[in-house]
Amino acid sequence: MFLKNCWYVAAWDHELIDGKMLPRTILEEPVLLYKSETGKIVALEDRCCHRGVPLHLGRREGDCVRCMYHGLKFDATGKCIQIPGQEMIPPKLGVKSYPVVEKDHVVWIWMGDPAKADPADIIDFPFLRDPQWTGIPDYLHYDANWLLIVDNLADFAHLAFVHTNTLGGSEEYAYVTKPVAIERMSNGFRVERWHMDAAPPPFHRKVLPAEEKDRNVDRRNIGTMFIPGIFYLQTLFSPAGSGSEKGNREGSREYCNVQFMTPETRRTTHFFWTYLNNFEGEDHNVSRSLHQSIIDGFMEDMHFIEAQQKVLDTDPDFKMLAVAADAPLSHFRWTLGKLVAAERAAETTEKASAVIPVKAPHQAGVNT
Amino acid sequence: MFLKNCWYVAAWDHELIDGKMLPRTILEEPVLLYKSETGKIVALEDRCCHRGVPLHLGRREGDCVRCMYHGLKFDATGKCIQIPGQEMIPPKLGVKSYPVVEKDHVVWIWMGDPAKADPADIIDFPFLRDPQWTGIPDYLHYDANWLLIVDNLADFAHLAFVHTNTLGGSEEYAYVTKPVAIERMSNGFRVERWHMDAAPPPFHRKVLPAEEKDRNVDRRNIGTMFIPGIFYLQTLFSPAGSGSEKGNREGSREYCNVQFMTPETRRTTHFFWTYLNNFEGEDHNVSRSLHQSIIDGFMEDMHFIEAQQKVLDTDPDFKMLAVAADAPLSHFRWTLGKLVAAERAAETTEKASAVIPVKAPHQAGVNT
Amino acid sequence: MFLKNCWYVAAWDHELIDGKMLPRTILEEPVLLYKSETGKIVALEDRCCHRGVPLHLGRREGDCVRCMYHGLKFDATGKCIQIPGQEMIPPKLGVKSYPVVEKDHVVWIWMGDPAKADPADIIDFPFLRDPQWTGIPDYLHYDANWLLIVDNLADFAHLAFVHTNTLGGSEEYAYVTKPVAIERMSNGFRVERWHMDAAPPPFHRKVLPAEEKDRNVDRRNIGTMFIPGIFYLQTLFSPAGSGSEKGNREGSREYCNVQFMTPETRRTTHFFWTYLNNFEGEDHNVSRSLHQSIIDGFMEDMHFIEAQQKVLDTDPDFKMLAVAADAPLSHFRWTLGKLVAAERAAETTEKASAVIPVKAPHQAGVNT
Repeated sequence: MFLKNCWYVAAWDHELIDGKMLPRTILEEPVLLYKSETGKIVALEDRCCHRGVPLHLGRREGDCVRCMYHGLKFDATGKCIQIPGQEMIPPKLGVKSYPVVEKDHVVWIWMGDPAKADPADIIDFPFLRDPQWTGIPDYLHYDANWLLIVDNLADFAHLAFVHTNTLGGSEEYAYVTKPVAIERMSNGFRVERWHMDAAPPPFHRKVLPAEEKDRNVDRRNIGTMFIPGIFYLQTLFSPAGSGSEKGNREGSREYCNVQFMTPETRRTTHFFWTYLNNFEGEDHNVSRSLHQSIIDGFMEDMHFIEAQQKVLDTDPDFKMLAVAADAPLSHFRWTLGKLVAAERAAETTEKASAVIPVKAPHQAGVNT
Repeated sequence: MFLKNCWYVAAWDHELIDGKMLPRTILEEPVLLYKSETGKIVALEDRCCHRGVPLHLGRREGDCVRCMYHGLKFDATGKCIQIPGQEMIPPKLGVKSYPVVEKDHVVWIWMGDPAKADPADIIDFPFLRDPQWTGIPDYLHYDANWLLIVDNLADFAHLAFVHTNTLGGSEEYAYVTKPVAIERMSNGFRVERWHMDAAPPPFHRKVLPAEEKDRNVDRRNIGTMFIPGIFYLQTLFSPAGSGSEKGNREGSREYCNVQFMTPETRRTTHFFWTYLNNFEGEDHNVSRSLHQSIIDGFMEDMHFIEAQQKVLDTDPDFKMLAVAADAPLSHFRWTLGKLVAAERAAETTEKASAVIPVKAPHQAGVNT
Repeated sequence: MFLKNCWYVAAWDHELIDGKMLPRTILEEPVLLYKSETGKIVALEDRCCHRGVPLHLGRREGDCVRCMYHGLKFDATGKCIQIPGQEMIPPKLGVKSYPVVEKDHVVWIWMGDPAKADPADIIDFPFLRDPQWTGIPDYLHYDANWLLIVDNLADFAHLAFVHTNTLGGSEEYAYVTKPVAIERMSNGFRVERWHMDAAPPPFHRKVLPAEEKDRNVDRRNIGTMFIPGIFYLQTLFSPAGSGSEKGNREGSREYCNVQFMTPETRRTTHFFWTYLNNFEGEDHNVSRSLHQSIIDGFMEDMHFIEAQQKVLDTDPDFKMLAVAADAPLSHFRWTLGKLVAAERAAETTEKASAVIPVKAPHQAGVNT
């Protein structure tokens, strides 16, 4: 059910400081992440090939990891390089290693065929390295399929109802605004929506100087979603009537928000995000206030999305009915579905000539 | 596994005061209950047809409900009457609505084909509206299949062992008394049992005036169970030897007890009950004492019944062996089984000509 | 998946004092254990044949047990001898009874065909009845398949890594020592390992007199594992260089350790153990200290073994890769696998001529 040959976000780089061994399940595979002594990030299967003990219960030895059950030692490529009490190491002994790239504080991982991993395919977010943009990167865990979060982000109308008193500002938003553009891309979608001449929504009003708090604003949201679940939102607030829709940026304030959805399992999700602004200067309380407002908003989303997951768990036959605003999410699921199907078909072809492994005596009975 | 074309108890009417939106799963379907402004009770599928969010997380607007995810609004018949930002509403958009009848403080619901719902089929319990009978309606939740509770009520012998010190009074009850009559009905059973010249059981003794506490009584229980799980028990205590078995009611005290078992899921049950007496007059401490005694007794039942459910969960192949006293419950299960089988057969015939829905892009991947 | 025709440990005899009714699931069957008035241990199916209520919720009456739901009474052979209110007792009414043998404080149970149960097949551990050997019998519960514990005991190399600071003493143990003998038996294996001229490991050092604490020792472990999961370990510590490998026992101290693994379910295990020494004399603090040290060590094992179980649960297709030290455990699993397969084949032959039971009305609907 997952697309494997693509880049997923595995972690923020700050999660790996000080030699931390971070276990994280990604696409239902147990992964161990750590930063080597040269600073390169290592991602190994978090499961000793010998008896299946998680390697994060083991010990780092330089850039290697030793399983602390029977002492097998693996290098940063996953190769077993020592078995205490045994001289010959069978070449097949080792754990899987995953291509990893650290870029602009984001740790990207490739869960599919390593031969196909091309760092050039990682989507570039220049504002993540631009000192003009500041914010606090963070992580949330969802008890829901990642696509339900993608759905949520595909229709801004939910701002009006879910986030009336936090991120939205009014229910009017759902009625008087519409997407001015929906772009269907081969790897996602792009939606744009304007809301003219309204009070600033609560999260924005909080960080405004006193004299701006009660002035109406024009608000523009541009959301872009890439497969498998990479989202960024460019938000512009400008003085009402100042012509920002025609390109005038005078008196504007901007936000840039990334949200990365990485499936932990088919019903749980790693959610990485940061909410950047370009105007706080030295006043980090702006970032701190925005960070808290956004968390409040995400909790509102989570309330609905996790409830949705429970409904789907209870009745897997439930058929959702589409409304007009579902065009972007329908496109996304349709596109993703085609890619997954193609990937599965290719795998089947590859496996057809492979040998079926037979259970060996040393593990007979364990799984049955 | 459930009989659908019949009336189930969904709630007590007091659960719906003050505009309360009550979510309740019935026969494994999520239902939302509320009382409209005209006092009529509404029962809707508790799941927005759009993305599956529970409607009880939404907001009442008059007699309508608005899903607070994307703002779809449904009227009291389940029809979608507003989609914010969209003018045309496809006629198929809506949620299921269930026939509901409020009668004598009981809210009845019909989970099957609405065309077959006839309020005249609701069993009448005149004592529920008779001011001579007083009691406190209440609710318990069971982690057990509802039929295990039906079983429990089908054999009064359990009073002797499970409820010796609460509702039963002595183990003798199981040895010296027997059903004097077992009536097999097309929609249930009726059992009658007499216990002559014994001390009043603890729950009854507590509410007796001091001078009666130590006088022996003759006790008669008549239990009637209707499909799908509608039970009432008529209990008579009369002075020992006063001839109540021949119709003399002098000095008698009577109880009338209803217990409604409604499957929440195949392994959990909603249990509605009230224990009425006809002699407390203005002394409501009689009702209060009885209410507490009955709860104590029900907790004793629950201890066994939930343990039974766990045994059945662990080994679904376990075969129960019948004893003579199981005649009523065997009849009940046999009768119910025939009705369910007939209903399923009719459904299959109806579905044979229906179209299989295909998964649309807007939900692809969600359930897989 | 279990071998049924063999003796398992069900309890320590001290668990059954004072008339205790002990419920214990063994090979996924609910068993009730108690000691009869003559001291003989009874093991019955812990599930009333009538409606499935656990008998341990019932009451002992002499050597019988009464189910406290409807009062059915069973004798120590499992035969139903009373149904309150019913005179004729159908001969098939009863619960299963299991062959049980108490020997040297261990309660052994036979879960298979009673006709095949021969107490002579119970493995004899003379030190369990020898007053020279003292220790404290105890019990632990594992959330893991019993074979994962068998594995653990099959390779002493894990002492070096898992138990460095408790039972092992140093990681060197894994590198400089090797099994001097591995004996493949038709019902298990035997491994022997020597570690010469090393500091005494922490658990042993703690109970040594002050003058011996810093003297090096030669250490010999002989572990013997029998099917289905019966282990004993004979440990010898002698002064370094004293020639104990040639039979000299002067200045030696010995331990004898039994560990009995009994499957509760396919993923949980009853673990019975005692760690005996032959040198404490009247100083029971030696036993107490050893008991605590061993528990500390077992907790270290459990940490890895339960993590292993979770890994196997998550990915039942995971293939373990063997190292040289896995020879004993591979032999064990291969031997056990053959016995289980033979037992299942024999059962299939026996069942082929048996009648398939049809669900009777008195239980229709309960399990569906």
